[in-house]
Amino acid sequence: MRSEVARLDVISIAALCLLLLLGGCAGLRGTGDMGVVIEREAGRVLVVETTGQSIVSKVQGLGNLSHASVVYSRDARYAYVFGREGGLSKVDILRGRVVKRIVQAGNSIGGAISQDGRLVAVANYEPGGVKVFDADTLEPVADIPAVYGDGGQRSKVVGLVDAPGQRFVFSLWDAGEIWVVDMQNPAAPQITKFKDIGKNPYDDLLTPDGRYYAAGLFGENGLALLDLWHPEAGVTRIMQDYGRGDEPLPVFKMPHLEGWAIAGNYMFVPAIGHHEVIVFDTRDWKEVKRIPVYGQPVFVMARPDGRQIWVNFAVPNNEKVQVIDAASLDIIQTLTPGKGVLHLEFTPRGEHIWISVRDEDRVKIYDTATFKELKSLPADKPSGIFFTTRAHKIGL
Amino acid sequence: MRSEVARLDVISIAALCLLLLLGGCAGLRGTGDMGVVIEREAGRVLVVETTGQSIVSKVQGLGNLSHASVVYSRDARYAYVFGREGGLSKVDILRGRVVKRIVQAGNSIGGAISQDGRLVAVANYEPGGVKVFDADTLEPVADIPAVYGDGGQRSKVVGLVDAPGQRFVFSLWDAGEIWVVDMQNPAAPQITKFKDIGKNPYDDLLTPDGRYYAAGLFGENGLALLDLWHPEAGVTRIMQDYGRGDEPLPVFKMPHLEGWAIAGNYMFVPAIGHHEVIVFDTRDWKEVKRIPVYGQPVFVMARPDGRQIWVNFAVPNNEKVQVIDAASLDIIQTLTPGKGVLHLEFTPRGEHIWISVRDEDRVKIYDTATFKELKSLPADKPSGIFFTTRAHKIGL
Repeated sequence: MRSEVARLDVISIAALCLLLLLGGCAGLRGTGDMGVVIEREAGRVLVVETTGQSIVSKVQGLGNLSHASVVYSRDARYAYVFGREGGLSKVDILRGRVVKRIVQAGNSIGGAISQDGRLVAVANYEPGGVKVFDADTLEPVADIPAVYGDGGQRSKVVGLVDAPGQRFVFSLWDAGEIWVVDMQNPAAPQITKFKDIGKNPYDDLLTPDGRYYAAGLFGENGLALLDLWHPEAGVTRIMQDYGRGDEPLPVFKMPHLEGWAIAGNYMFVPAIGHHEVIVFDTRDWKEVKRIPVYGQPVFVMARPDGRQIWVNFAVPNNEKVQVIDAASLDIIQTLTPGKGVLHLEFTPRGEHIWISVRDEDRVKIYDTATFKELKSLPADKPSGIFFTTRAHKIGL
Repeated sequence: MRSEVARLDVISIAALCLLLLLGGCAGLRGTGDMGVVIEREAGRVLVVETTGQSIVSKVQGLGNLSHASVVYSRDARYAYVFGREGGLSKVDILRGRVVKRIVQAGNSIGGAISQDGRLVAVANYEPGGVKVFDADTLEPVADIPAVYGDGGQRSKVVGLVDAPGQRFVFSLWDAGEIWVVDMQNPAAPQITKFKDIGKNPYDDLLTPDGRYYAAGLFGENGLALLDLWHPEAGVTRIMQDYGRGDEPLPVFKMPHLEGWAIAGNYMFVPAIGHHEVIVFDTRDWKEVKRIPVYGQPVFVMARPDGRQIWVNFAVPNNEKVQVIDAASLDIIQTLTPGKGVLHLEFTPRGEHIWISVRDEDRVKIYDTATFKELKSLPADKPSGIFFTTRAHKIGL
């Protein structure tokens, strides 16, 4: 009798161990095909994978996720989620849980991870400046207040990106300045300030090679351009006709600059307030063509091979997506994913695109060669979609 | 007594389970910072990671690995290792073991993985052609013999790459042809053949955007160029002065084309037989400059941000590495890692470079900003180094 009880114990413990083994190891998988989808109102992210096109887990408790953005650790395991109300959350996408969460400011607008992956920086509106954290622990490393003028004022910070050489670059909305911060020695950031770059820089982009930093100006036309290979040359002005124009039209949503598409020598740019995508030649920054599109463009994104440009639109035209052929500069496809198309993300080699459709509570997946809808996943008011391949990119 | 034995059983089984649990889950980690180093003579690969700069595991039994190359599954978990004697091995870098190994030909020269990650293709010398396998199972999917002329001959195949649109592109050494194979329907590959492209194409490159396929010609000067955006325009000849020249010098090792560096609008190319790196402008394929270097260049690689070009050399100059500044086109650094520098691989965002030093049985890691040696790892006659970020790249 005793030995039977013991045998049962042995069997049940073995079974328990097997369960633990399977459960504990369920996360054993490559992270190259993973990503997260922001569910903005639920304060949650969906962890997804693009091979089986499925939802792997849901991670809650991330606070206000309107306008949230994400960068990844260099091993592509941890997603750093930047919320609007100063929240910075480190999410383990393999285990599907929050590792650490801090609230580091009152109001913030995205962040970046350093070239070596050791530092995470956040751009803050309130208090204006950049805070830098240890990527492992989220312990504070550096605080860079965006003081300007007589030193008594602090500016909102926008357009924070990482750049080669362990640098962060960002713009000061109120001050009209661009700052380049060298973090080689995290304890003593070296700041280079470029002043009078233009009125109210509102967003920025870094070219994919990490060389040119361009700031869009809300207060005037043109872009402020800094060549990071030649900072001694200072900031110059390009694309002088680009902007809101002399008679600004109502703008329903300011276009994002980070999404601007560079394909070959052309840059595809959303017009502000107009139903146009403007094509510039990056060799001389001159306008090549204005392509009429369905609405006010928001994101203008190049497929990773540069052959197609995908565009979504502001209200009231946010139910459609259009595709421009980068060779002919013609629109070759118009899709109607549904009301509230907020974001688009290509799979790393561009065969598919994932589109968040807020008002339908869906993420839809399309084949970029056939334009067929392949699958649709349920998501609660989805906004940004971020795949792990971003871990390896410069300037996000 | 019985119950004590049973209790011991319970304890030992629990301990065993715990070991299994720990052992089985030791592999739980992101794969974004991983890679493999080929140990050519041992028929082995070292699985490495670039955050802690360490060796994670060693995987044996891969056969002849001279001239071996590697591509990755789209989840960055599996390395497909192409050996010289027709071996194709699928290695699980998380578990550190061979999942499957086949010998699919007598003599082969590298391979590629399709855009969607479902197909692995191998370029074979003997029998001449391309074989395509299911990436999951390595079961055969398609056999494409490289027949030419009257159909009775088969050519050696070189320069096999993947291209956007689920295509493979490769060249026929004996036939002087370039073939583009559309694998949208794996059961019925669609082959487009370009004939008379030049004498003895020996290696190829695809520009990083997947648009231009260029074949180097052993039998004459110049490169055969195919614009995959405009295949109807056929193959043209570029860089007419490039090649072995009218009075060929002894060539100690043919330079690799896949390593050719594109930085901004410049392409940095190893001269054949000469101690020079040649700079071409990709806008008109004209020569810009010839940079004298220490030896006959083999690999000419751009740091991911394009600012630096790193060069290694053929015997008897293979103990050094030189660095060219892409802005000034000057040599800014000469390093001496040691005899037998065979390969160089940058970390994804370019802060470090890993260099295999065969005759010292070492892989050395350098900081690309300070040029300091950071660490050196033991490796048995290391050759190729391949990081998982390749999973997301077009044209490898």
